[in-house]
Amino acid sequence: MVVQLLILFLFYHGVVVRDSNCMAEALSDSGSANAPTIESVRESLIRQEDTIVFGLIERARFPINSPTYSASYAKIPGFTGSLAQFVAHETEALQAKAGRFTSPEENPFFPKDLPASLVPSQNHTGVLHPSAASININKSIWDFYFDKLLALFAVPGDDGNYAATAASDLVCLQALSRRIHYGKFVAEVKFKESPKEYEPAIRAKNRDALMKLLTVESVEEAVKKRVAKKAMVFGQEVTLNSTDGSNGKYKVDPSVLSRLYAEWVMPLTKLVQVEYLLRRLD
Amino acid sequence: MVVQLLILFLFYHGVVVRDSNCMAEALSDSGSANAPTIESVRESLIRQEDTIVFGLIERARFPINSPTYSASYAKIPGFTGSLAQFVAHETEALQAKAGRFTSPEENPFFPKDLPASLVPSQNHTGVLHPSAASININKSIWDFYFDKLLALFAVPGDDGNYAATAASDLVCLQALSRRIHYGKFVAEVKFKESPKEYEPAIRAKNRDALMKLLTVESVEEAVKKRVAKKAMVFGQEVTLNSTDGSNGKYKVDPSVLSRLYAEWVMPLTKLVQVEYLLRRLD
Repeated sequence: MVVQLLILFLFYHGVVVRDSNCMAEALSDSGSANAPTIESVRESLIRQEDTIVFGLIERARFPINSPTYSASYAKIPGFTGSLAQFVAHETEALQAKAGRFTSPEENPFFPKDLPASLVPSQNHTGVLHPSAASININKSIWDFYFDKLLALFAVPGDDGNYAATAASDLVCLQALSRRIHYGKFVAEVKFKESPKEYEPAIRAKNRDALMKLLTVESVEEAVKKRVAKKAMVFGQEVTLNSTDGSNGKYKVDPSVLSRLYAEWVMPLTKLVQVEYLLRRLD
Repeated sequence: MVVQLLILFLFYHGVVVRDSNCMAEALSDSGSANAPTIESVRESLIRQEDTIVFGLIERARFPINSPTYSASYAKIPGFTGSLAQFVAHETEALQAKAGRFTSPEENPFFPKDLPASLVPSQNHTGVLHPSAASININKSIWDFYFDKLLALFAVPGDDGNYAATAASDLVCLQALSRRIHYGKFVAEVKFKESPKEYEPAIRAKNRDALMKLLTVESVEEAVKKRVAKKAMVFGQEVTLNSTDGSNGKYKVDPSVLSRLYAEWVMPLTKLVQVEYLLRRLD
């Protein structure tokens, strides 16, 4: 529990402990100068919140635009599916050629038939356990995004900008996917910090025990508050005359961000962590 | 000059004059319920500032990553150019199939060989003069973005994320292109408001006179200040404990936004307006 409390403390108070023994241990254990630390993982998670809030605010420029999600609207020769599926599938294909999915931080929504990278390979070795590559829960992310989340922050209506809407959805999906699958790095850092804490539950394949070890409710409460605050700050109307000309009106309702994190981002990140830890000793 | 002063007043004070005679005239002249008005054009320009600031902040997550821009790095079979060119070219091709460039607000960077739209066509008629489609200054936008702007806000270095970097560049480029070519709508609204103001200079093909008519220095100063303020608000570190935990440190230097608008966005928007007006009486 000491490590849990330390993580809690670091997360909640935003304290950076560069020279603690734990950090030195994590660095020396890693065998790589670029290995993630609690500090770097925390910074990345917080930075990715900004990306997600920006993404939702940008998607909210458009109304729902439901034909984007209807296979009967698109009728694209040689493709079965909606315009959103077409744009995501084809964008991923070209980004795969450009080498995007050679990064362990990126997970495709359409892993089947993904073209090979056409660019010189990058050295992404050593940080995660090799089985990390087998964890991909993008199907769940796709489903909650389109079936639940979208209607919470995009207003009803149709402005005809379906292609731009689909591109904007993909930016959100990729940001959410990166954030949720970053659980692999979170789990790796936590495991490296105190393997003995996790090994019994891993060997017993006890998902509930692992989930309990990974859950710190007060941290989750703080994250929910912070993302709501980011929705207020980034979604306000900025004018020269005042600090906040929004009068409580924001481009995306701050409570949607809290709910997104509470219902989907944090639970799914922990699911990724559990899946990763279950494979960590293989 | 009355119209110029009115626009100045609207822009500077953020006043929305829904029921003014000018607005009613603009609406009744248009012959379309969706025709742009001074109000809607102004709102769109201000909203697009947010998009541009978000885009730059997101690009600033990565260092320069210069191999992204080197043809000798990419060596993609069947493609001559850099990874940034490949990602932009291929993304535009698939977005063209998805119908993106049937919108008069969107202008491609690679208009040659752009595939036709594969989706049912949208009704985008009637707002702009037909010759608007012939105005595309994306070559200038591409050049200032990569040759001048990028080094002002992306830190030196290389983290290997070239595909994500190229995708992030394209988001910025498309946001800048949409904003600058929105000059077509700005010019249309201004012309509709007072054709007699512009007709002599248009008939005389007097670019300098048109540029002078379109320039309101105090408005431009206000825009420069506002985009810098947006860089501060959107680029701050948001924490639960304070309103602004940045201590003057922002993800993108606010002065870069002022400079971007002063040196490129506003002059190029006016260039688009002049080009549009010169064709407006054809």
